[in-house]
Amino acid sequence: MYNDLKESVWKANLELVRYGLVVLTFGNASGADRARGVVAIKPSGLDYATMKAADMVVVDMAGRVVEGTLRPSSDTPTHLELYRAFSGVGGIVHVHSLYATMFAQAGRAIPCLGTTHADYFNGAVPVTRSLTAGEVAKDYETATGRVIVECFRRFKPLETPAVLAAGHGPFAWGATVEEAVQHSLILERIARMAWGTLALNGRSRPLPDYLLRRHFRRKHGPDAYYGQTKEKRR
Amino acid sequence: MYNDLKESVWKANLELVRYGLVVLTFGNASGADRARGVVAIKPSGLDYATMKAADMVVVDMAGRVVEGTLRPSSDTPTHLELYRAFSGVGGIVHVHSLYATMFAQAGRAIPCLGTTHADYFNGAVPVTRSLTAGEVAKDYETATGRVIVECFRRFKPLETPAVLAAGHGPFAWGATVEEAVQHSLILERIARMAWGTLALNGRSRPLPDYLLRRHFRRKHGPDAYYGQTKEKRR
Amino acid sequence: MYNDLKESVWKANLELVRYGLVVLTFGNASGADRARGVVAIKPSGLDYATMKAADMVVVDMAGRVVEGTLRPSSDTPTHLELYRAFSGVGGIVHVHSLYATMFAQAGRAIPCLGTTHADYFNGAVPVTRSLTAGEVAKDYETATGRVIVECFRRFKPLETPAVLAAGHGPFAWGATVEEAVQHSLILERIARMAWGTLALNGRSRPLPDYLLRRHFRRKHGPDAYYGQTKEKRR
Amino acid sequence: MYNDLKESVWKANLELVRYGLVVLTFGNASGADRARGVVAIKPSGLDYATMKAADMVVVDMAGRVVEGTLRPSSDTPTHLELYRAFSGVGGIVHVHSLYATMFAQAGRAIPCLGTTHADYFNGAVPVTRSLTAGEVAKDYETATGRVIVECFRRFKPLETPAVLAAGHGPFAWGATVEEAVQHSLILERIARMAWGTLALNGRSRPLPDYLLRRHFRRKHGPDAYYGQTKEKRR
Repeated sequence: MYNDLKESVWKANLELVRYGLVVLTFGNASGADRARGVVAIKPSGLDYATMKAADMVVVDMAGRVVEGTLRPSSDTPTHLELYRAFSGVGGIVHVHSLYATMFAQAGRAIPCLGTTHADYFNGAVPVTRSLTAGEVAKDYETATGRVIVECFRRFKPLETPAVLAAGHGPFAWGATVEEAVQHSLILERIARMAWGTLALNGRSRPLPDYLLRRHFRRKHGPDAYYGQTKEKRR
Repeated sequence: MYNDLKESVWKANLELVRYGLVVLTFGNASGADRARGVVAIKPSGLDYATMKAADMVVVDMAGRVVEGTLRPSSDTPTHLELYRAFSGVGGIVHVHSLYATMFAQAGRAIPCLGTTHADYFNGAVPVTRSLTAGEVAKDYETATGRVIVECFRRFKPLETPAVLAAGHGPFAWGATVEEAVQHSLILERIARMAWGTLALNGRSRPLPDYLLRRHFRRKHGPDAYYGQTKEKRR
Repeated sequence: MYNDLKESVWKANLELVRYGLVVLTFGNASGADRARGVVAIKPSGLDYATMKAADMVVVDMAGRVVEGTLRPSSDTPTHLELYRAFSGVGGIVHVHSLYATMFAQAGRAIPCLGTTHADYFNGAVPVTRSLTAGEVAKDYETATGRVIVECFRRFKPLETPAVLAAGHGPFAWGATVEEAVQHSLILERIARMAWGTLALNGRSRPLPDYLLRRHFRRKHGPDAYYGQTKEKRR
Repeated sequence: MYNDLKESVWKANLELVRYGLVVLTFGNASGADRARGVVAIKPSGLDYATMKAADMVVVDMAGRVVEGTLRPSSDTPTHLELYRAFSGVGGIVHVHSLYATMFAQAGRAIPCLGTTHADYFNGAVPVTRSLTAGEVAKDYETATGRVIVECFRRFKPLETPAVLAAGHGPFAWGATVEEAVQHSLILERIARMAWGTLALNGRSRPLPDYLLRRHFRRKHGPDAYYGQTKEKRR
């Protein structure tokens, strides 16, 4: 019944492996169908090599399985918390990619040190606060989503389409699951470049605001002039 | 006579190459058949590209060759020492993978800095003490096993399924040789992330105990809820 | 009408992907036909996997499209500024390759620390000054070209065939677009080696001038003795 | 006339590319036929992808071409200087591999920090002194060989089968050209691990002598017990 959604989510999960963002079963991508109020997500702990589109699990916004025989990813409650809070988001990716995870483990936001970053993120990629013992004990995965939402009181989710869960790793999102995968890949790339820039000079300064905004708006919003007009895009 | 065991050990050795954990002949995997009291292991210094399952050498727990015409890995006495001391272990892998070896060479345990680590290791991955001149002179490889066992007086082998031999490199293990390979791969990954985290912030703190335990128990023990129930696993 | 030029520029863009210098759509190569006063360049934001030679856009030296139906790369004004100022340059490449971008983000020139560098660059690879708010607001991409030209008052473009745009990334060039691609690859390699050398020893000294010149002249100018005579080259 | 020699040298050069030790034309391997007093070496600046065994150039120990129509590698005088001084050496490799070159550029020997290193090198991999302006001006490539030989007054070439030419990069050798390639690969690996170990702990100590010697002698000399007896080796 949700074949197209399951197909796109399955493909997105395989892309994560192809881009080197995932080893073994460390990661998951989900996609939402807002009109029907459902989310398709990777099953928990399944081998990417043999996983099929039909294995994707469809849940409603409260987390009840509506299609599929396997258990959904153990991170499903985190994804749902984000879908409920971030209305424009249509796809979410969680990975433990190397450099983004280093920043998450160091409890440090990724500063916007260059235009590669500014092309996709309108400022630093923030890091959440740590969870308390109480939050971990009760509904851990939902609490992970909640501290992300709390952190985003100061940000617009579609202008800063990723976050670092402290001591854990990155979550990235987008209007679609394909965009979420792309943001996840770019996040890893800018994390690696920020890591190396800080190693060269620990006091490197963020881009000035006027340059950050210029780059972000080249690609986003009404004044964007990067890429092709819609009908010519491939 | 031990064809299945030899086949699984041979495959495990090839996996090490495929995952980039081994170059040239730097590594070895072994698997035990506890019921028959034997261990199959890679022959010493053989080329992975032309090695066949039939080349695996089968030894008893005292190290006597019971099947095979080649010389077993020079690290065999270390493997046997671990099998004798760690009763639940069914497979062992030794490699000189890059980042785990850096920690071993620096004589430093890998602290548990994030949930990727906590998903597989119930705390830091320890480093052994250095061997004395006397230990090196006499039964060097057995002594390597002995300092690992000594180090594990404070740990449960299946909750901390790896160790760093000081100045040498990692040993990883598991209930099966396939699990040992997987732990070896994950160890390298978390070593690399810990290395980069410490470069970003040399005073990064380990995960709080409540979060470490939560993650470890998501995947291990009676309360595990990660992955599929046995009959649905692939 | 410009089929050969478009073909060579298309191939050069694909080489950037093959060498790992580009992910997604982060990069562009262009080639000039000086006799006809035109430049062929990659279209903006197009997918490398499906892009064809016929998609390349041909513009004149003032930036007017003379062939092609797609929008040229948003960096076209930067390329044109360089072609107008650097008369011997026949090809230009812009990428966000990892290590060269780290130096650009740190606002630091790449010092000539070894003979690999000296074989291709007659001294340090310079970094531009930052753009002012006024320059960014008005003709940003042209201004990027202008600060590069300003920076090269002190250098000969064909003896130092690359630059780092501060807070942005590298531009490399050459007599042909093929040479520009090669310089872009070598730049990334020497950036990575310089990065690692500085990590080992932050006070590493540049090569002495006599060794720099010797290496550069082994490969360039009238006394070159590296490689084959023209008729034997392949 | 020297077909076997040329074939083995050609294959060795291709191995350098396959192992990622060479990009573009940055490297060369040579092999000696001591009985006939000749050395086969890669031609200068030739593309690895199209190079054939027949392209290898054969020179005598004084550097005169005895077979071949192409110009030999510009580093030929360095190779010959080493063959003349190191009687047991049958193959030499020069590359600009990343981590070994970082140590060469930092002017720093690679300390023996672990058993991976000790398995192949009987102590630190030394770095030469820098060349003087006079040495660079006159017979630069021969002088490069001469400072290596000078540096090896304190070492046995076959027990320390590599060196770092200061500000330049590594040379590795062995009894055969195949062994020289292998040492070049191992050198890069141990350089990378030493680099990372020093980043973790800048005061990491070399292995104690008793452990270094034990590992080196496991693989080399009359008491070696690593690998298979000759007739069983593959």
